[in-house]
Amino acid sequence: MDLPKKITIHEVGPREGMQFEKGPIPTEAKIRLIDMLSECNFPEIEVTSFVSPKWVPQMGDAEQVAAGFTRKPSTQYTCIYLNTQGLARAIATGRLDLEGWIGTPASEIFSKKNSNRTIEESFVEASRRLAMFREHNIPVRTVNVLAAFGCNFAGAIDPNRVVAYIDRLMGMAEEAGAPIEYIQLADTMGWANPGAIRDLVGRVQKRWPSKKINLHLHDTRGLGLANVLAALEMGVDDFDSAVAGLGGCPYGGFKGAAGNIVTEDLVHMCEELGVETGINLERLLEVAREAEAIVGHPLPGKVMNGGRLEGYRARAHVA
Amino acid sequence: MDLPKKITIHEVGPREGMQFEKGPIPTEAKIRLIDMLSECNFPEIEVTSFVSPKWVPQMGDAEQVAAGFTRKPSTQYTCIYLNTQGLARAIATGRLDLEGWIGTPASEIFSKKNSNRTIEESFVEASRRLAMFREHNIPVRTVNVLAAFGCNFAGAIDPNRVVAYIDRLMGMAEEAGAPIEYIQLADTMGWANPGAIRDLVGRVQKRWPSKKINLHLHDTRGLGLANVLAALEMGVDDFDSAVAGLGGCPYGGFKGAAGNIVTEDLVHMCEELGVETGINLERLLEVAREAEAIVGHPLPGKVMNGGRLEGYRARAHVA
Repeated sequence: MDLPKKITIHEVGPREGMQFEKGPIPTEAKIRLIDMLSECNFPEIEVTSFVSPKWVPQMGDAEQVAAGFTRKPSTQYTCIYLNTQGLARAIATGRLDLEGWIGTPASEIFSKKNSNRTIEESFVEASRRLAMFREHNIPVRTVNVLAAFGCNFAGAIDPNRVVAYIDRLMGMAEEAGAPIEYIQLADTMGWANPGAIRDLVGRVQKRWPSKKINLHLHDTRGLGLANVLAALEMGVDDFDSAVAGLGGCPYGGFKGAAGNIVTEDLVHMCEELGVETGINLERLLEVAREAEAIVGHPLPGKVMNGGRLEGYRARAHVA
Repeated sequence: MDLPKKITIHEVGPREGMQFEKGPIPTEAKIRLIDMLSECNFPEIEVTSFVSPKWVPQMGDAEQVAAGFTRKPSTQYTCIYLNTQGLARAIATGRLDLEGWIGTPASEIFSKKNSNRTIEESFVEASRRLAMFREHNIPVRTVNVLAAFGCNFAGAIDPNRVVAYIDRLMGMAEEAGAPIEYIQLADTMGWANPGAIRDLVGRVQKRWPSKKINLHLHDTRGLGLANVLAALEMGVDDFDSAVAGLGGCPYGGFKGAAGNIVTEDLVHMCEELGVETGINLERLLEVAREAEAIVGHPLPGKVMNGGRLEGYRARAHVA
């Protein structure tokens, strides 16, 4: 199999995962989770969101979380913010690695539901964000398209439209002097399949051969790792994922929630395929079990129950 | 993607799934599950095991189950039996489609644990079985190798050894005048990965180009559908699976149990890839939810929570 030698994994569990949880999670547990993840050698951990606590009460302690975790020099600690106010809060912490991105959902209805904007208004917002990033001297390296593979409200998404949105975002970034390195395709509602991955990734690679592609995949319908496999075969080497599958557990009153792909299962698959991730899987499995203990209900990660094959190999008798 | 136009799915949930459950499942619930599965157009449903109730008490009602379900003409209703005694019980029901198979585990230690035989003794047993099948006029179409991709006790399994075991079984079948059609590779403990699938399937295809390959995969480490994808790309078109992922739930005190791949998630992936299964997925999703209700704890199936994409497409607004 012709796969990348090495891939980069961005851990999004503390941010994307926690916002799905219904019960309040103590701030110190969130901080413990980040600190444990730091021991696993992630190049990036998304630690929190600076959004209105009115809409996302689980992120009401963003400042305390940012103040509380221990930084490791080899890890970037990033966060989400949706407007100038959020950015100002993130800057004020003085402890986060700030990066800018611009993007749009590919579905009009989802855009309205997610951010109360039309797609056209998303481009106006992107323009505002570019100005905001320039003003605060924050590098903009990424353009993204949400719901790039399909939408629960709008159904199938035409890949030509996704390419056209990326094209427009790239043009805006160029005009603003922002050197885009990454094109992120987000399968926000778990619509992708291996064929669709090949199709859209192929189009984006053809149109922008020098840019890196990041895939932000959800495992809503169990296709997450099959989609990763299809992407690896296309040479994609940059993925988001969440430890233990935090964020989309259908087992604790979260029916229908769309969880990110499971970090440790992704790392394990890569290990078995000879693709390096740089992640310490033994430690990560401990973090996954701790994540389950923190949220207090079962999470969908498989390897934390099934066990890492390297461990079995080491303990194996001669057959 | 160059995939088979159509695949065959063998539903093993009522047999392989139920034997993992700790609590007693009422016989009428088992029968209801089989009858509901019959409405989904499976070509084969494994309904029960005729094994010693001393070892597998969950299968103590095998006769009642066999007597109770309603046969559909387009479905084969099969069962497992490990010796002449079990076969006699299955024959006595007069309601099952009896098929013979011979096989061996690829791991010495697992063989001892699973059936208290060495691998060499498995071949002696295969010989005995061939005589038994001939005596009862039961067709033998399948040879199989268990733990073909690896073993929790023995570690990695050399694919050359798997091929050698198949070779020997094929020779025995030929000598006995049994026309083998299927070679089944069972990933009994969830060790396969897409690279290993390609390797072993490729070897078997090269050695026996005219035989069909059946894959019996477990999803212990979340690689089940990625493994199916790799197999589809190799032209494999015959799979075992269990509705709702019955049989290997790590969420209800079954930690470490190795569940079969989830039938409805497999059907859904095929649907999205344009591969026909002949299965009625809408009905199957109802069966999956019923399976969860019957066992009384969450099962790992994803599409039963995430929803079938065809349904979302049908309800979608214009984006």
